[in-house]
Amino acid sequence: MGSDNAPRVEVEGALSAVGEADVDVVLVGDEERLRKTVAELAPRGLPARVSIRHASEVITMHDPPSIAVKQKKQSSMRICFDLVKSREVNALVSAGNSGAMMASGLFVLGRSRGVERPAIVTTLPTPKGQCVMLDVGANVEPRPSVLAQFAVLGSVYSRLRHQRVRPKVGLLSNGSEEHKGTALTRETHQLLERARAAEGRAGFEYLGYVEGRDIFRGDVDVIVTDGFTGNVLLKGFEGLAEAVFHMVAAEVQHGSVREKLGALMMRPALRRFRRRTDYAETGGAPLLGVEGVAIISHGGSDTRAIKNAILTAAQFAQMDLAEALRQGVRDHAFLWEDDPAPASGGAVGN
Amino acid sequence: MGSDNAPRVEVEGALSAVGEADVDVVLVGDEERLRKTVAELAPRGLPARVSIRHASEVITMHDPPSIAVKQKKQSSMRICFDLVKSREVNALVSAGNSGAMMASGLFVLGRSRGVERPAIVTTLPTPKGQCVMLDVGANVEPRPSVLAQFAVLGSVYSRLRHQRVRPKVGLLSNGSEEHKGTALTRETHQLLERARAAEGRAGFEYLGYVEGRDIFRGDVDVIVTDGFTGNVLLKGFEGLAEAVFHMVAAEVQHGSVREKLGALMMRPALRRFRRRTDYAETGGAPLLGVEGVAIISHGGSDTRAIKNAILTAAQFAQMDLAEALRQGVRDHAFLWEDDPAPASGGAVGN
Repeated sequence: MGSDNAPRVEVEGALSAVGEADVDVVLVGDEERLRKTVAELAPRGLPARVSIRHASEVITMHDPPSIAVKQKKQSSMRICFDLVKSREVNALVSAGNSGAMMASGLFVLGRSRGVERPAIVTTLPTPKGQCVMLDVGANVEPRPSVLAQFAVLGSVYSRLRHQRVRPKVGLLSNGSEEHKGTALTRETHQLLERARAAEGRAGFEYLGYVEGRDIFRGDVDVIVTDGFTGNVLLKGFEGLAEAVFHMVAAEVQHGSVREKLGALMMRPALRRFRRRTDYAETGGAPLLGVEGVAIISHGGSDTRAIKNAILTAAQFAQMDLAEALRQGVRDHAFLWEDDPAPASGGAVGN
Repeated sequence: MGSDNAPRVEVEGALSAVGEADVDVVLVGDEERLRKTVAELAPRGLPARVSIRHASEVITMHDPPSIAVKQKKQSSMRICFDLVKSREVNALVSAGNSGAMMASGLFVLGRSRGVERPAIVTTLPTPKGQCVMLDVGANVEPRPSVLAQFAVLGSVYSRLRHQRVRPKVGLLSNGSEEHKGTALTRETHQLLERARAAEGRAGFEYLGYVEGRDIFRGDVDVIVTDGFTGNVLLKGFEGLAEAVFHMVAAEVQHGSVREKLGALMMRPALRRFRRRTDYAETGGAPLLGVEGVAIISHGGSDTRAIKNAILTAAQFAQMDLAEALRQGVRDHAFLWEDDPAPASGGAVGN
């Protein structure tokens, strides 16, 4: 109920999802509004595979996450998490407040065994295929052991989602040399170097520092960074991609007739490119490291984004992503186990 | 001598610059190599406005900045700074090691009065005009007062360079709400709020937190961030822009004949766009806050980039950018003057 276009895109996305795949959807939100929206979109009534669960409250984009989670117990987001917790559903999708999603994951589902802090992971398109980046918003000031765990969570995800047998992991920095970076990246680098030393035990290949421009080279499968940098970067990429199209369009508009005609003729190629790189195609960013499957979709998600997020959530539940991540963390504890201060976790995302 | 294509692009860029504008250039580097390059590029010999100053050492991209500066006293970069210091030249341009540029600025020229830490500023193209971002690499872990000063340095630069009468300044964060950000951004926000409170005294309009996607909206003239985030972001943008063109080209290549023809027809518009947004157009990123004009060009600069950097450096020297920045810092001391720990400056760029 808290997304930009709720609940219309959610209802429509759910209706498409059940039409396309073997999945049941519970719509959680204000029952009256949901029924009204269903009536508009499905004149023949609710399909058998879609049900409605009433929620009287809404967590808005402006609610401080931790307060929202603890106080709005009847919110649609909170009830979704309760349904996952009680195993009435296998996964949840929300395009609402991402900080509240993170806080709910921690508070309601809890961290998976061995995980210090969950991460939000996103998929970026590159000329050679997909690259995943984490964290993109949950942990703005993590400690080194948390980033080392993100390398593991990200590589398990890359393996399951993008079939990388031994994902290549890079630590994002302001240069490739070891003396670059912040105290955080340098300490994390020390931990991840253990993966290089113990090659047989690590399920990923650690590449060391990578720079911003390496993200799109396609030679790195997993980019590890803190939630502040990751979030700023992800939103910057969205902004730049949009600006490039606007600026090229403006050049064409002020250009010759020949250029205008050319642009018209190549439009299908552009459309294919945009579809391939659109966030709506991947549907959402899973929260990795909590006890259950939770997918955070873009606040401005459209129907297709919600549908794809639902299908992805179903896949993750089926392949038991949470268990694969738990196992990954267990198998890689040697990376951070004697780290001086591994216990308390970083600052809560906000 | 330390750039990717040195010294050819530097020599060629200098020759173009003196051909285009009222400027004298001193080429600093290995005399024999410089003379050989000049002989290849200018068969009629060195123009009167170009001279050569021998330097026996080179700071490479891999040299740790502070060591390079102190030990390689005969390097081309160090001698350039010495020439600015002794006022034999009015400005310097280098496409070499940017960390060493920063360190040399600090060590040889020194900080301008009142400036805690210099910043490297870059210009980003937006659909509505230019936006400047700082710091993009010099200070990876600055303190809040340093970021507050960057707001001032950036706004003075935006005013002189892009004719913004009262630049709009945004502080980069992972969300627009005040509870977002890191300890650093929240404390900096407190300082910059003073500019809002004292509207008449501040030479810029403080917009508060801005997100990654706001950079390209064109509503912000100056983006303030730490050198780690700024550097990762800038390189990420370069990588993404390149990837977009590769991916669109790949779609066209696998597309219909009609699409291929269309792409060919609209190529001039694309070329105009690329020229407008190419870093070579702005030529380089000045180091703001040191006693003199120093421009850091991209390591992979081509001739046009070097030429434009030289012309820009000459402009900055003529308009006395350093004095305007000093004055800006003096006039805005109320932003940070009672900040608890203003003295020692952040970590040295590396």
